[in-house]
Amino acid sequence: MVDSTGKPEVVFLPGGMRSRVQPGISLDQAARDSGADLQCVCGGRGKCGKCRVRAVPAHASKTALSLPTEEELRALSPEAIAAGWRLACQARVQADVTIDIPEESRTGIQVIAKAPGSQRVFPDPAVTRLSLKVPPADLENPVADWERLGVGLGRNEKTIVFDPDLALLRNLPEALRQNGGEVCVILDNSGRCTGIFEDAAMPLTGIALDIGTTSLAAALCNLETGEVMATASAINPQVTCGEDVISRIAYAGQSGEKRAQLQDAVIGGINRLIDQLAEESGISPSAMADMVCVGNTCMHHLLLGIDPTGLGRAPFVPAVSRPLDLCARDLGIAMAPGASVHMLPVVAGFVGADTVGALLATHPEPGNETVLLVDVGTNGEIVLACGDRLVCTSCATGPALEGATLCHGMRAAVGAVERVWIDPDSLEVRYRVIGDSPDRSVPAAGICGSGVIDAAAQMFSAGIINPSGRIDRSLDTPRIIDQGGETAFVLVPDKESATGRNIVINQEDIRAIQMAKGAIQAAVTLLMAETGVHAVDRVLLAGAFGSVIDPVSAVIIGLFPDLGGANISAVGNAAGDGARLALLNRGKRRDASRLARKMAFLELTTHPRFQRTFAMSMHFPRMAKRIGRSS
Amino acid sequence: MVDSTGKPEVVFLPGGMRSRVQPGISLDQAARDSGADLQCVCGGRGKCGKCRVRAVPAHASKTALSLPTEEELRALSPEAIAAGWRLACQARVQADVTIDIPEESRTGIQVIAKAPGSQRVFPDPAVTRLSLKVPPADLENPVADWERLGVGLGRNEKTIVFDPDLALLRNLPEALRQNGGEVCVILDNSGRCTGIFEDAAMPLTGIALDIGTTSLAAALCNLETGEVMATASAINPQVTCGEDVISRIAYAGQSGEKRAQLQDAVIGGINRLIDQLAEESGISPSAMADMVCVGNTCMHHLLLGIDPTGLGRAPFVPAVSRPLDLCARDLGIAMAPGASVHMLPVVAGFVGADTVGALLATHPEPGNETVLLVDVGTNGEIVLACGDRLVCTSCATGPALEGATLCHGMRAAVGAVERVWIDPDSLEVRYRVIGDSPDRSVPAAGICGSGVIDAAAQMFSAGIINPSGRIDRSLDTPRIIDQGGETAFVLVPDKESATGRNIVINQEDIRAIQMAKGAIQAAVTLLMAETGVHAVDRVLLAGAFGSVIDPVSAVIIGLFPDLGGANISAVGNAAGDGARLALLNRGKRRDASRLARKMAFLELTTHPRFQRTFAMSMHFPRMAKRIGRSS
Repeated sequence: MVDSTGKPEVVFLPGGMRSRVQPGISLDQAARDSGADLQCVCGGRGKCGKCRVRAVPAHASKTALSLPTEEELRALSPEAIAAGWRLACQARVQADVTIDIPEESRTGIQVIAKAPGSQRVFPDPAVTRLSLKVPPADLENPVADWERLGVGLGRNEKTIVFDPDLALLRNLPEALRQNGGEVCVILDNSGRCTGIFEDAAMPLTGIALDIGTTSLAAALCNLETGEVMATASAINPQVTCGEDVISRIAYAGQSGEKRAQLQDAVIGGINRLIDQLAEESGISPSAMADMVCVGNTCMHHLLLGIDPTGLGRAPFVPAVSRPLDLCARDLGIAMAPGASVHMLPVVAGFVGADTVGALLATHPEPGNETVLLVDVGTNGEIVLACGDRLVCTSCATGPALEGATLCHGMRAAVGAVERVWIDPDSLEVRYRVIGDSPDRSVPAAGICGSGVIDAAAQMFSAGIINPSGRIDRSLDTPRIIDQGGETAFVLVPDKESATGRNIVINQEDIRAIQMAKGAIQAAVTLLMAETGVHAVDRVLLAGAFGSVIDPVSAVIIGLFPDLGGANISAVGNAAGDGARLALLNRGKRRDASRLARKMAFLELTTHPRFQRTFAMSMHFPRMAKRIGRSS
Repeated sequence: MVDSTGKPEVVFLPGGMRSRVQPGISLDQAARDSGADLQCVCGGRGKCGKCRVRAVPAHASKTALSLPTEEELRALSPEAIAAGWRLACQARVQADVTIDIPEESRTGIQVIAKAPGSQRVFPDPAVTRLSLKVPPADLENPVADWERLGVGLGRNEKTIVFDPDLALLRNLPEALRQNGGEVCVILDNSGRCTGIFEDAAMPLTGIALDIGTTSLAAALCNLETGEVMATASAINPQVTCGEDVISRIAYAGQSGEKRAQLQDAVIGGINRLIDQLAEESGISPSAMADMVCVGNTCMHHLLLGIDPTGLGRAPFVPAVSRPLDLCARDLGIAMAPGASVHMLPVVAGFVGADTVGALLATHPEPGNETVLLVDVGTNGEIVLACGDRLVCTSCATGPALEGATLCHGMRAAVGAVERVWIDPDSLEVRYRVIGDSPDRSVPAAGICGSGVIDAAAQMFSAGIINPSGRIDRSLDTPRIIDQGGETAFVLVPDKESATGRNIVINQEDIRAIQMAKGAIQAAVTLLMAETGVHAVDRVLLAGAFGSVIDPVSAVIIGLFPDLGGANISAVGNAAGDGARLALLNRGKRRDASRLARKMAFLELTTHPRFQRTFAMSMHFPRMAKRIGRSS
């Protein structure tokens, strides 16, 4: 929206950086000003064509950008221009616009902290292969191909379903002809033949897929050895239809077409990941025969084309919670033609298969320990495991902890401040920038989630903010400034930053952080109270964001209530790990189903004590004030 | 649930009809009021015991019905009463109750579909619907939609598969919201929920589809009554890629793309037929939930995208012969999103599901008669049923019998000569043209299949051709002419024809007819010899062409060897009728599968006596010479 100053706003995807600019400024300048990652090889002369970007149609009027220049007409096809493609150095901003920077137009690689974990699992995959020799048909005994194959299958000890998938039948005659009757068939979890495995030398593989609201992460695994052969990640293409779950639900609820658009977007993204996995590993997609998916309940529903409207209003129930066995072809996922897709179960509207996967990977068995699993993102999901009991809840934290809505917030991409240290005496600031190294200096462009929590913790420890969250204007430091009527603390001075402007945390940012951390603290407080738990042995911080939070900073700002001396550790992308375990071992699927059924859900939105507990939880904890920390 | 009016609700299975009734009403009256099918022979006096029904235990409290009357205690054993059995005319409704009406207590009067030979079929479809009320979710018990529905399904006595199809999940949340939890679900043959039936007033329907090499024919049937609601037919769009099976196999064998092109062509044609059926009947495609397909083996394979190359070379085996249960969506067929497609089994490369369907419709049970089922087209399929034995074969007849390659041959369309009479003395010709009537004169444009056989028979009877097939040039008639070096007989003189040219049968045409009829005669001869059969009781001429052949002409030209006085009759499109029977009754699918497995196939191309028998069979039979015939 054009604000009172008359300046249009430009939003850059996938990082989500936004800035208000002078009308007439070029897109590449706007990108630099906002800290978005965009390459500019020819110095803005429109010669190299490397700065191709796309105006997101739904987010831009036809006059949001200047008319294409001669350079653009040379570099881009008429079809591309019609689809919104522009050269960033040529197109000039005239009104509000959202610009998608494709990967090839960026300089750096997105930092998505979703690496597969290392938990070992004995391979007992749902999808297997079986080689056998099928006798030829002859004129005396003209038995059909599948029926001759069935004789061989029947001799095996496996339980075979004699109703084959079309993917097998389509290739069976040719396979039998080519190899003198030697074929290798793929069997799914029910013993149904779902295809011909064409190249016996190739490993049989599957994909563990984590569908996040913001990003997709996939690991290609050898189903027979468990080895991770390749990984790939990308922005969830649905972000152009809404940054968070609530806006996706609203978008999908508009019409069946919008729902289909969201489904097509994520499936397109998955298919591009599969291509990346194939390229990196040298494994053909036709040898990728199984997939296990995790994701929050909204992502789960949108992938399957299920109406998610019910997730967004009380009583917040999913359309289905049980695990589902589907056919990849039916979803349009381009793996082996008969490949299976297993969806881990979901628990509630806001406790999804990602939480089930994370629990499966980190705490699948009841024990004596009391364990708190916390996945912090735009939404927080929390599971409390106490002996044989599992209780879970979720809370809306807003996008502050991921940096999205803060004054200078950005995603965890190159140029983001990810760590902050403040000297409590001099109030001098040290910080670390993603992508910065001795070889390559990267100036700070904004601040990401882990940097936000660090900054808040350090500002509180240094006395820059008081327990109620107010910035102390009386302190004698040039870093406390007035910016547009808001008190702000300068983390990165203008002369050090990529944008040429101060990078600050202002009073409003602190309030947003307090709201977010307050929601989590309140959720944990009530979960413990309802369960009668007074002390927690271990806290597991999960998720792409949870795993980069500094545990000490989390304690300083009071992300949790007093847990009685719990050991806090980051467990990485536990949801993705859970998907990998369930991909490699059928027993893990049963475990996941058992865990999901066992999980009791505590609804907080209607809990009588939630509002009061939340209000109390927004304060910073006094006891933690001025806790020092070594770098 | 007793509603605000205090009226209890009665649900009748299997139809799922429900109605709220005055307390104290008898079950038979409630059944009549709700439209459920229940017989009532003795007029409600409790004397005949024909209205036995069963209260579904899980759905009825012990006091839902009045206590058993004396009549019931006489008619039912104590065990039966304990199990919930009642007489509908005696038991009175006191509270909500679900009543199962067993097959023997239904009248079945409205549920009759006719097949050839007045075969009646009682509807027992594979796809059914079930209405139920799903309790709402609330914050105390936030159970997912499908899981709440599952509780209701579990109370039914049907076998339910708890793994729903995506088509159901996609619409379930919306359906539950819109109708206050009242939903009607569609169940497939395995008890799997495949969709929501949106408009309860609409009948649940299915399609019987006959995929011919030349044409497609579809019948839309009410699955619950058996009524045929609409029919539609069209040219098979694959004809542009080859007129006969052999050229289709060759085309498909060129590449995967060509195979996909053929598949897309036929599926496009099927979807247009579905649109026609919808328009004619007013039934939405979303209420078309099942399909049964018949077709020759090549059509079967091409519909499914299976490589048909093996059908075209020895040993001519199909990729699969068993019946297949598929998902319409997977094939791109635009019916209800979760609709099923059942493919009747095939027997051999050239004895397909159409032959199985024709046998199912005409001679499904072994008997004392010896029956020959002959489907004549470009290819001839022949089944010999002799007691409990079934032996079949196929032979290539070429397109002559369909008129396609003859000098003035054409398809059976308006303007085709379809009947011919020749006076053996004057050699004058009378003929009948398709479309010609007293109201509208249609001149002859060519000659179609039945006309070809008539012409050959009449020319032979009149002595115009001799037993070896040579046209007798010595006859004194202006109708025998020389045309382009070939001797020809003028059926329609130039001044009578639509083309302004003579319509003739020439010597080459006679040879082509001899080849075709010789192949069929040889096939029948060898089939009888191999089976040890010397006489046939009945010959059933099937297929669009078979059913228009004049049986007397067929005998005159020797389409068959001496069958010992068989009764020859045309049975119409028996293959399509078989598809309809299998659509309406699950037992017929099992019958079809049993028939296909029982059929022994006799390969003729490599039979040591085939060439000799074929050569001998090309002659016209002497004994039949100069058999007169009345018009």
